[in-house]
Amino acid sequence: MIGGGEGAYIGNIHRLAARLDGAWRLVAGAFDADPERGRQFALAQGIAADRSYGTYQELIAGESARPDRVDAVAICTPNFTHYPMAKALIEAGFDVICEKPLTATLEDAVALEKLARETGRFVGVTYTYSGYPMVHEARARVAAGEIGTVRTVQVEYPLEWMATAIEQQGNQQAAWRTDPKKNGRGGSIGDIGTHAYHLAGFVTGLKLQALTADLATFVEGRALDDNAHVMLRYQGGARGLLWSSQVAIGNSNGVRLRVFGDRGSLAWYQEQPNELVLTPLDGRVQTLKRGAADMSEDAKARTRTPPGHPEGYLEAFANLYLGFAEAIRARREGREPSAVGRNLPTAADGLKGVAFVEAVVDSHEAADQPWITPIAV
Amino acid sequence: MIGGGEGAYIGNIHRLAARLDGAWRLVAGAFDADPERGRQFALAQGIAADRSYGTYQELIAGESARPDRVDAVAICTPNFTHYPMAKALIEAGFDVICEKPLTATLEDAVALEKLARETGRFVGVTYTYSGYPMVHEARARVAAGEIGTVRTVQVEYPLEWMATAIEQQGNQQAAWRTDPKKNGRGGSIGDIGTHAYHLAGFVTGLKLQALTADLATFVEGRALDDNAHVMLRYQGGARGLLWSSQVAIGNSNGVRLRVFGDRGSLAWYQEQPNELVLTPLDGRVQTLKRGAADMSEDAKARTRTPPGHPEGYLEAFANLYLGFAEAIRARREGREPSAVGRNLPTAADGLKGVAFVEAVVDSHEAADQPWITPIAV
Amino acid sequence: MIGGGEGAYIGNIHRLAARLDGAWRLVAGAFDADPERGRQFALAQGIAADRSYGTYQELIAGESARPDRVDAVAICTPNFTHYPMAKALIEAGFDVICEKPLTATLEDAVALEKLARETGRFVGVTYTYSGYPMVHEARARVAAGEIGTVRTVQVEYPLEWMATAIEQQGNQQAAWRTDPKKNGRGGSIGDIGTHAYHLAGFVTGLKLQALTADLATFVEGRALDDNAHVMLRYQGGARGLLWSSQVAIGNSNGVRLRVFGDRGSLAWYQEQPNELVLTPLDGRVQTLKRGAADMSEDAKARTRTPPGHPEGYLEAFANLYLGFAEAIRARREGREPSAVGRNLPTAADGLKGVAFVEAVVDSHEAADQPWITPIAV
Amino acid sequence: MIGGGEGAYIGNIHRLAARLDGAWRLVAGAFDADPERGRQFALAQGIAADRSYGTYQELIAGESARPDRVDAVAICTPNFTHYPMAKALIEAGFDVICEKPLTATLEDAVALEKLARETGRFVGVTYTYSGYPMVHEARARVAAGEIGTVRTVQVEYPLEWMATAIEQQGNQQAAWRTDPKKNGRGGSIGDIGTHAYHLAGFVTGLKLQALTADLATFVEGRALDDNAHVMLRYQGGARGLLWSSQVAIGNSNGVRLRVFGDRGSLAWYQEQPNELVLTPLDGRVQTLKRGAADMSEDAKARTRTPPGHPEGYLEAFANLYLGFAEAIRARREGREPSAVGRNLPTAADGLKGVAFVEAVVDSHEAADQPWITPIAV
Repeated sequence: MIGGGEGAYIGNIHRLAARLDGAWRLVAGAFDADPERGRQFALAQGIAADRSYGTYQELIAGESARPDRVDAVAICTPNFTHYPMAKALIEAGFDVICEKPLTATLEDAVALEKLARETGRFVGVTYTYSGYPMVHEARARVAAGEIGTVRTVQVEYPLEWMATAIEQQGNQQAAWRTDPKKNGRGGSIGDIGTHAYHLAGFVTGLKLQALTADLATFVEGRALDDNAHVMLRYQGGARGLLWSSQVAIGNSNGVRLRVFGDRGSLAWYQEQPNELVLTPLDGRVQTLKRGAADMSEDAKARTRTPPGHPEGYLEAFANLYLGFAEAIRARREGREPSAVGRNLPTAADGLKGVAFVEAVVDSHEAADQPWITPIAV
Repeated sequence: MIGGGEGAYIGNIHRLAARLDGAWRLVAGAFDADPERGRQFALAQGIAADRSYGTYQELIAGESARPDRVDAVAICTPNFTHYPMAKALIEAGFDVICEKPLTATLEDAVALEKLARETGRFVGVTYTYSGYPMVHEARARVAAGEIGTVRTVQVEYPLEWMATAIEQQGNQQAAWRTDPKKNGRGGSIGDIGTHAYHLAGFVTGLKLQALTADLATFVEGRALDDNAHVMLRYQGGARGLLWSSQVAIGNSNGVRLRVFGDRGSLAWYQEQPNELVLTPLDGRVQTLKRGAADMSEDAKARTRTPPGHPEGYLEAFANLYLGFAEAIRARREGREPSAVGRNLPTAADGLKGVAFVEAVVDSHEAADQPWITPIAV
Repeated sequence: MIGGGEGAYIGNIHRLAARLDGAWRLVAGAFDADPERGRQFALAQGIAADRSYGTYQELIAGESARPDRVDAVAICTPNFTHYPMAKALIEAGFDVICEKPLTATLEDAVALEKLARETGRFVGVTYTYSGYPMVHEARARVAAGEIGTVRTVQVEYPLEWMATAIEQQGNQQAAWRTDPKKNGRGGSIGDIGTHAYHLAGFVTGLKLQALTADLATFVEGRALDDNAHVMLRYQGGARGLLWSSQVAIGNSNGVRLRVFGDRGSLAWYQEQPNELVLTPLDGRVQTLKRGAADMSEDAKARTRTPPGHPEGYLEAFANLYLGFAEAIRARREGREPSAVGRNLPTAADGLKGVAFVEAVVDSHEAADQPWITPIAV
Repeated sequence: MIGGGEGAYIGNIHRLAARLDGAWRLVAGAFDADPERGRQFALAQGIAADRSYGTYQELIAGESARPDRVDAVAICTPNFTHYPMAKALIEAGFDVICEKPLTATLEDAVALEKLARETGRFVGVTYTYSGYPMVHEARARVAAGEIGTVRTVQVEYPLEWMATAIEQQGNQQAAWRTDPKKNGRGGSIGDIGTHAYHLAGFVTGLKLQALTADLATFVEGRALDDNAHVMLRYQGGARGLLWSSQVAIGNSNGVRLRVFGDRGSLAWYQEQPNELVLTPLDGRVQTLKRGAADMSEDAKARTRTPPGHPEGYLEAFANLYLGFAEAIRARREGREPSAVGRNLPTAADGLKGVAFVEAVVDSHEAADQPWITPIAV
């Protein structure tokens, strides 16, 4: 693991998720920009002293030299460092698990996706919400035609924690997210809108054709958008509406997806993730529960407990780690991965996400509000 | 009452609503395009034979000649007839209660609003959702600054009943709604989007500055939009997102409004209309119940039963009728109306609604997707 | 109408409900124990002076003498007056609509039910919750075997408004409810528990075999129970659990019924009365909406608006009044009543309710209630 | 670990929970009644061959002889084996984590609790629901007097999976639960009612004084109750109602607790475990979210992710394992445990649970249970 040392939020989530199923062991790391702090942290995690590294370059050098070198490296560092680290790791022959966004610029994302494709290295991107079993269930049902041809998608990701200028009051998590140098051009749209965009595409299988967007910055002195409205046109005629916000008081982590087809609809809400609401044409609203007997193979492969025993965010994250492990193992063994190792977010998805954010900001900045087409992937 | 005869949906609703509180008596009408059917219907409603008219012109002539002429006339006929009827009624000195939309064209709406203003006649427009007590409660709380300055508004009105081509299978309600000659240029946006637009403006007090829209027609052979996405920019910087749909399977009548300010948020859902969810900044999600002791005067004036005894759509409609009665009575008596007679939807609101729909269709049709500004009201 | 004058709560509800559908006209009354106040009130209600009576005896005498005598009389007075009034009305040949409880004592209830049965007079008792369309829907589905043989019933009626000693602080509504002379032996069990009991029996069709109960009085100085727990055994083996409370903070009017059979279950909650949740054996949780096409004839006969347009408490009450009108009219016309005039709460139901409350209090007071104390730890 | 081998449900849950936070390592086990199957399973779990034992006796002997002997042993075997295993482990000086019920008979429970108390060995019992952060939050708020003196408790644990005779169709999980020899005298009351009883006591701090109960067996041929109704009287005057059911179609795992005091109420529902609903006297219904800033120390110590990132059943289970580790470590280090190591379910709770089930069955079987039959109508 690179980054994720003392006090890091997402690094800890990665470790909890990797540990849950026993599919990964954390044996080496460069946890902190401060090598000494990093070593202390490694010690506390039970890492051998000779595998606690000061920098990612040392980690690559050290691990490359070992017969028992690590299987993959997780990158949990600020956005702008993702590209050089991932590139060096891939070139040294390591598989990579990378926090989203894949990179801070579109150029880097294009290059990285190409490198991954050409080398055959596995690059997993932690679009967490695609780890939820009922999101896979939704995807499987759409793919099976259960709601017919998709007509419109309503997706939103509202948050409340940045409703005031906390980045000016010492909150580090908010500070880097509102700094264009560290976060890229998109504010809420880059931080969370990209999750919503990935989720909608993941479940529907739709490919974006064009969008038009309206960004706003409501907190004074903030350099990036904290609220984004986007109208989407998908290939084939489906439409979408996407809202991301960091100032939507009352929403802890309100990811919500609704998909309407010509034969039914599906709705999923992240704060109640074990349920999926299905309404067939002319039928009753039905609640599907995770773990029920009629679930798809994809959802079953990602579920540990029976209906009524809630699984949550960490289990979703753990499903990505399980899947990454299976995908890598299957490649090594020259076989198809089992269900949990399929339909994973990879470098191509990471690239799509970066391209989406660029298109949104371009649309907003265009004087005449044209429909902007993201680069083809 | 004009229109609303045998088998009419909305005419029956008007009668139920007018009757509930005993503030109106139905004593005259021209209920049907077929005079004989109209007379049969009048009889069944207990209307005197000499006040059952064949046409609206006869009604105006007959009632004008009586000393006990009706206080007001409710128009429940197809959209394109609203203007000539309302005009003739106002010119003959009658107050008017008109179904939305006010008129079928913007030109007529402008003329009618001017006529109402200049003659001092009362023209109530039945934007039903502004009759709900908790919508008034929301409005009062926004006006009192309880959620601070409004930043973004999320409003939607999804329906499912036109998800298939029922207008081609004999459904009359769907047939006129999909006929541009009878319904005007807007499909879902004109039929229900205008309700959502009025609701958002009513609660927030915000005035629209510009919009950009994306209309879609998903049911084959349909001449008007059945799904509309609109991005809104309000004067002063607030933003909005509006979705209307007639093909959103799973939604019976899913009007939903969420308003986010810099000090709190409010959420209201029409299918659970007795509750209003309020979240203060850094506070807990709170459920306000209709009838609670801390409700505003405006909401209390529109409530009949204690908390926990649900009131619904008919009561909301009845609140409009109660308010129209009080507004007319207060004008006659030369006094200020009491709370129930204030904050009513009138011709000016009807005009704004027609202008909104026009702007949405213009935006959609504009080749370069500029932000369109509706005419100022 | 007898009682229900100025400031009366339930009398006003009766009038709103009777008026909604235009099936009843209020033309006479003895509205107040104070004849002068009663006359003032009658005047404001538009009642002719010669049909505004000082006492119920005068009302019976006056109306009996008229050729256009009233069709039925609604009794909205305190519990202990129900019996003499209803008896006199029936003996004078009037149909009666009586607030629950039917009478204040079991002896009176037995006598009144017998009198109604033998004279053929209609005696409707306003068990309001059986007016809700989705309660009829639940009843029809149980009767049709949709959930199989009923095994257990969970029914509750919690309220919060008497959580403190408001009867000692001038609240009149609370004062008579906590006075054994006016309310009878049951406190919460008589005021609201009887509603819950009727609802459970109405939906399931089950007949009570035996019960055991535990009453409690939590507010100091209160003379009657304000919380009741009852275990029910129905004929045929089904079991039930009933909870009524006047001190359950957080519950406005939380009537909730859940019925579990061997092939499915049903759940209904009065604060969201337009929905009924149905879960078949091995199936998904389904939400049935009032107004949907697959509703029973009984529910359809009691519905005015389409799905998604909420109807509530007043509409449920109005359904009872519609039904009473139809039942009386059908009897006069010598025909079967239509759906809305069937399955109405009558004197027999009123008697069952009074008998239930007596049995609960008897059970609580029984000396040999075998409470078991687990071994101390 | 003893038991929990190939195909075991609860054993796997124990392992997932123990692994999540890295506080425990699984290093030895006697996983299966079939020693060979047990060894295969141990191998797959990465256990050293010399620490994979055939029986619990061998495990005790083997581990006792090692300098690096295990810190504690988890018992995941059928109920009737708990006592001899736990007794032997304690006598050999091991700490124990035991599945509920503590033992199959009251006599054994008394003896085991005494042994644990006298030897000072730690005996944790996995009453899972007391691992949820919001259950601790509820407990802390009741203890702090936030809802005042508790008046009534409504607790229920309905399940649906045994609504048909699946134990007669080869379902092993259902088979032992319906066999009095393996499960003890209580059916649903022993399997899940005891969880509900523990939860109610845990949150309120109330001690049971007496109870009266009504058990039913709805599935033909089943030897134990599958539905239980219990009325509770707590010391000090509070009352309770408890319902457990294995045949409540529509309920996956519907543990629900509501506590009503004289100053407020609390409600928690296990299928939405990250929320706690709090209603103060005369106040609004409020939703508290796990992870919010105003949570108690006890809840914070058991939470890993921010509000809106759902945690569930496994996290609750893991909180017990975290707590057991901390409690054991603190005892060894001679200090007070930190928050996560306090308020844990131990042998005393296990004993209370067994005593509760005995009392329920005794009450049901008591000949003089005074069931009252209301008069026939």
